[in-house]
Amino acid sequence: MKNITILGSTGSIGTNALEVIRQKRDEFNVVALSGHTNYKLIIEQIEEFNPKYVSIGTEEGFKAIKEKFPEIKLFLGREGLKQLGQLEETDIILTAVSGVIGIEATVEAIKKGKRIALANKETMVAGGVYIRKLLKEYPKAEIIPVDSEHSALFQSLSAGKRKDVKNLIITASGGSFRGKKREELKDITVADALKHPKWSMGKKITIDSSTLVNKGLEVIEAHELFGIDYDRIKVAVHPQSIVHSLVEYNDNAMIAQLGATDMKLPIQLAFTYPEREESKALDVLDLMRVGALTFEEPDMETFKGLPLAYKAGKIGGTMTAVFNAANEVAVELFMKEKIKFLEIYDIIEKAMENHIPEEVKDLETILKADQNTRNWVYEKYGK
Amino acid sequence: MKNITILGSTGSIGTNALEVIRQKRDEFNVVALSGHTNYKLIIEQIEEFNPKYVSIGTEEGFKAIKEKFPEIKLFLGREGLKQLGQLEETDIILTAVSGVIGIEATVEAIKKGKRIALANKETMVAGGVYIRKLLKEYPKAEIIPVDSEHSALFQSLSAGKRKDVKNLIITASGGSFRGKKREELKDITVADALKHPKWSMGKKITIDSSTLVNKGLEVIEAHELFGIDYDRIKVAVHPQSIVHSLVEYNDNAMIAQLGATDMKLPIQLAFTYPEREESKALDVLDLMRVGALTFEEPDMETFKGLPLAYKAGKIGGTMTAVFNAANEVAVELFMKEKIKFLEIYDIIEKAMENHIPEEVKDLETILKADQNTRNWVYEKYGK
Repeated sequence: MKNITILGSTGSIGTNALEVIRQKRDEFNVVALSGHTNYKLIIEQIEEFNPKYVSIGTEEGFKAIKEKFPEIKLFLGREGLKQLGQLEETDIILTAVSGVIGIEATVEAIKKGKRIALANKETMVAGGVYIRKLLKEYPKAEIIPVDSEHSALFQSLSAGKRKDVKNLIITASGGSFRGKKREELKDITVADALKHPKWSMGKKITIDSSTLVNKGLEVIEAHELFGIDYDRIKVAVHPQSIVHSLVEYNDNAMIAQLGATDMKLPIQLAFTYPEREESKALDVLDLMRVGALTFEEPDMETFKGLPLAYKAGKIGGTMTAVFNAANEVAVELFMKEKIKFLEIYDIIEKAMENHIPEEVKDLETILKADQNTRNWVYEKYGK
Repeated sequence: MKNITILGSTGSIGTNALEVIRQKRDEFNVVALSGHTNYKLIIEQIEEFNPKYVSIGTEEGFKAIKEKFPEIKLFLGREGLKQLGQLEETDIILTAVSGVIGIEATVEAIKKGKRIALANKETMVAGGVYIRKLLKEYPKAEIIPVDSEHSALFQSLSAGKRKDVKNLIITASGGSFRGKKREELKDITVADALKHPKWSMGKKITIDSSTLVNKGLEVIEAHELFGIDYDRIKVAVHPQSIVHSLVEYNDNAMIAQLGATDMKLPIQLAFTYPEREESKALDVLDLMRVGALTFEEPDMETFKGLPLAYKAGKIGGTMTAVFNAANEVAVELFMKEKIKFLEIYDIIEKAMENHIPEEVKDLETILKADQNTRNWVYEKYGK
């Protein structure tokens, strides 16, 4: 029996993870759950999965859960996430919260030598250098990526040695606005940006997908996870989202992972690796019905999220945290209709120009760069 | 420095292997070469690669080589191949001769504990059961497949455990007559059948590709190489020949190897495995230029080579040797214009009906079934 902690159990990844566990209750035990505002859903999850520990983001939720489940060890907010990261009983911790708030719990779990099923991009984007240092200090800990692209790379990297990798090729659906030019994106509405052709995901990530910032975050994450230079991480637009990413080796062989557009596969793999397991939870890919698979270069002129990410990554240090924080605030402002779609790029660009990158020595350096960037953007563009 | 023996150095695989070696002369040394009738080409190869041992298929060739290179240890015919299989100095033996004649040398090389880069389908098709038994007796020996499909499966199998494999999916270009119906194949000429859309190969294999017998042989070979049941080996027609085959795991993840249509990649990998190496010899796949990749079910009604192979494989014992031998003779008769295209299937089917399968205890059982089948077909259809 493996004890699973899920940080962010009410989100898209979290509910998919619970579906994976639902099909294998004799194999996985939910030891802890955390949610942010949606305490009603977490109450249902507690009833079904009976965790020993829970953390919730709001006072209101805290009270409601405390009243209904007085026996549960209940935590609150950011400190609560950190507490769940430290649980000895956890075998695997899935970090599926969004934002830099996920880093602290991951750091705690690494120090406890746990397996981290990583679905929080910010951990590696903002904290990659620090996390890599920590993983060397705590060799029992391991990170298995849950993002479908990084899971595909992780799987494909087993067909050769790291030294023999020529390129990582991250596939991108292209988002809602694939094929459109800058001029056509000027008056995009929030509703337009929230229509994603292939993946059903949270709002923030759907917007990030439409700006290609999401793909940029994935490029940085791949660099930090797999230690491959930015010049050897490519992006291929693949609208069908069947090939989840590829590794090109130095002998020109490419190894790819294909699958249904189903987050449950990479989630389960992160739980069962190095084994793989059958499950009714997992969607089947019918290769004979996928139609034609195509690949094209991304339009870096229009979708500046990608070149800005490469730029931040190559500068390094705290710059990737700034890229991420500026984008988070910009997307928030866009969703509040305070800025236009293309201004998301302007905000990221200006925040990066405004920042003097520092070497990442500790978690504080990252969190400070993150907070300063947020403050700077709010100051300049309103809140 | 690795010492390489190439059986069948004048054929398509053999010359590709020499091109791989040509680019890495400081890494690979040609210790032995063999050819069948084309002694002029082998003389050029001797001049370039300076092997210590050579075997040739004809008396005429033997005399010509003896005269020009008196210092070379020269062998003749089938016995010569067997001798080359026994060389202590070999590190890797590439068996790229066609026909059951390749089995004996492979058997010798296994007994010497060598790495076999296997490009001779018949070894596993006719002799699989026996070869698998031998590999258990001589655990130092190993077979690395060179067929592009089996190499792709071999590479993709590293992403999971054998017990977690759900299906092997072998891709097929579909051959020259893809999309045609039985009625349209009645009056196919030899010239028609020799036009292959994607791969430039020998004549016999091009015909086999057009009948899907080649894919049938590959299904049997995959069964013997990887120990996967026939019910879990599928064929997908993929006319672009970019995805060289796929492994579907029990969690529905598919792992695939993609590459240019270039035999040099699997050949070199069989030489360098588990390393991979850059080489100017190897063609690059430009994913952005491949166009659309498609997959469809094979037409088993029309191209009976495939269902007949499954049938032979499921019956087992000597039946796969009969399937192979009947096809070899039938293709020979077709190329001599003694039979029509569709009669290739009739001959295989009747030879299989006529045969009472035996358990394969030794090499003799296989060779006897092979010879008896040939005799039977010649008797019935002329020579």
